[in-house]
Amino acid sequence: MLRVGYPAIFSTELLSDFPCEVELVPLPDDLDHEINIDVWIPIPYANRALKIWPHLRGVRLVLNLMAGTEWIPAAVGPDVTICNARGAHNISTAEWTISAILSMLKHFPFFLDVQRSGQWKRRFEASANYARITGDTSEFFPPVMLEELHGKNVLLVGHGAIGQQIEQMLAPFHVNLLRLARTARAEPLVHEVSELDTLLPQAEIVVLILPLTAESHHLVGSRQLALMRQGTLLVNAARGPIVDTCALVEALNSGHIRAALDVTDPEPLPEGHPLWSCPNLLLTPHVAGSSPQFAARSLATAAAELRRYLAGQPMQNIVQQGV
Amino acid sequence: MLRVGYPAIFSTELLSDFPCEVELVPLPDDLDHEINIDVWIPIPYANRALKIWPHLRGVRLVLNLMAGTEWIPAAVGPDVTICNARGAHNISTAEWTISAILSMLKHFPFFLDVQRSGQWKRRFEASANYARITGDTSEFFPPVMLEELHGKNVLLVGHGAIGQQIEQMLAPFHVNLLRLARTARAEPLVHEVSELDTLLPQAEIVVLILPLTAESHHLVGSRQLALMRQGTLLVNAARGPIVDTCALVEALNSGHIRAALDVTDPEPLPEGHPLWSCPNLLLTPHVAGSSPQFAARSLATAAAELRRYLAGQPMQNIVQQGV
Repeated sequence: MLRVGYPAIFSTELLSDFPCEVELVPLPDDLDHEINIDVWIPIPYANRALKIWPHLRGVRLVLNLMAGTEWIPAAVGPDVTICNARGAHNISTAEWTISAILSMLKHFPFFLDVQRSGQWKRRFEASANYARITGDTSEFFPPVMLEELHGKNVLLVGHGAIGQQIEQMLAPFHVNLLRLARTARAEPLVHEVSELDTLLPQAEIVVLILPLTAESHHLVGSRQLALMRQGTLLVNAARGPIVDTCALVEALNSGHIRAALDVTDPEPLPEGHPLWSCPNLLLTPHVAGSSPQFAARSLATAAAELRRYLAGQPMQNIVQQGV
Repeated sequence: MLRVGYPAIFSTELLSDFPCEVELVPLPDDLDHEINIDVWIPIPYANRALKIWPHLRGVRLVLNLMAGTEWIPAAVGPDVTICNARGAHNISTAEWTISAILSMLKHFPFFLDVQRSGQWKRRFEASANYARITGDTSEFFPPVMLEELHGKNVLLVGHGAIGQQIEQMLAPFHVNLLRLARTARAEPLVHEVSELDTLLPQAEIVVLILPLTAESHHLVGSRQLALMRQGTLLVNAARGPIVDTCALVEALNSGHIRAALDVTDPEPLPEGHPLWSCPNLLLTPHVAGSSPQFAARSLATAAAELRRYLAGQPMQNIVQQGV
């Protein structure tokens, strides 16, 4: 019987969807002895999973509950097949992305300051903020206090399941979309990631939603940040090391761009790190995928993949094919 | 020749779309003598417009640049026809509404505090916030740090141009919509506003987007707030006096509901007012309609209405028909 190790912290109710022809083996965080399993569902925190891995024997397949699997290949080696939870976190992560974009364009961090100061008249500072950040010094009447998403040029760097969900959620805002991915495609037009530098100057919003790989490491560095227009909003809902943190801190502090980040490099971001206090930045501590639906959706995705594996059907979310 | 008074602060470039068979009369803020005009385009600040009105003679038609016209009938009397700028502020106001909803469901005000504290580990406070606000004390793993808009029950109180725009922007989030307006309609189903108390307990998000009238004054009072579910998000993108402020302060301070307000009663909200420091509140100082497109769109709407008036065609945005 196939033995499937899963985080003991999950209630068995959440696992009721798993095929009955497997043996479910709960893996506690304090596992301290060798255990034989065939399939491993790691606890969705890399640091905790990495403490469990040394005790596991016989693992041929990893079913990850996250979309990103960047820590797994080095841990388990090339013999093991790795699948991610493609699709399970589309809604939560795409919603965070739209929320972050809109919050920045509506200058909500500034208006929260106004709210806390209790001074209605501070609203009039908003138009100076707008001019300073965007570089648009036109004389507006009434003064511009908020921007619009409507009609903006949005560059999606990555066009997987979450990127496509972001595109759907952007539809009613009538943005002009540019798309990049590892491989170029037509309909919809997706450019190859090598065209990044060419496309960056056209964008007003740049959304990073691609896996962290050797190729995407520091994809956005000082050269790419310099190619962005004044006031461009860089959104990272992917993984911190895709951006060169030092270059980002410099670009933010100079006032050239603004950013909304759910991920950083390093992570957790240590106290006193200069990124915490950069201007024109919204930083959430890697929570974008969080949702009351997280466990149910990601375990359903894993269960479906396991059923395909048992039936000898091709699996759908393979990130690394074991040799 | 028809004389059209407009705010002198607008550049004539913005007025190039106006019909050539009218005489455009600039009205400075410090107007100190009587002036004869037929059509008045008030400056889009009630307090400044009210200082100009006493000097105007002969006004038969007011073309307002805002959607709300609540101060105009009492000022100009029943003989004058009043049109609003229906449609001109759909995008900006609907975008603010979606931004406010998402920011609250993603707990961005809390995460901005975390950001400012520079302490990544404070993210773990988020799940206690979630449980306290929503009353959902289920044991989640991983802990719930953010909510989703996806699948929420949203009650739109008002279904005019902006309400319909909000509905369009909500579409990709697959919410369950309930709609109320002054008059019931079918396809889509819009209930009569008298059904408010019946529908409130079903909603998780209540959006006020209706005109301020004698009927809508204090439409949401302590009874309505008590009918809302624990943790309901009340969004006011309409006018402050639609909500009873004292009852709202009480409902927020008790932790029963949360709110996102662009408008308050009174306005401006004075320093020291208890609303400023209520918990679970996002308050922006009446900026939702602000946009770099404000003047262009609202003047285009006024120009179109003026062309219909000149051609003897029925006007489209009449709020008060002069007698």
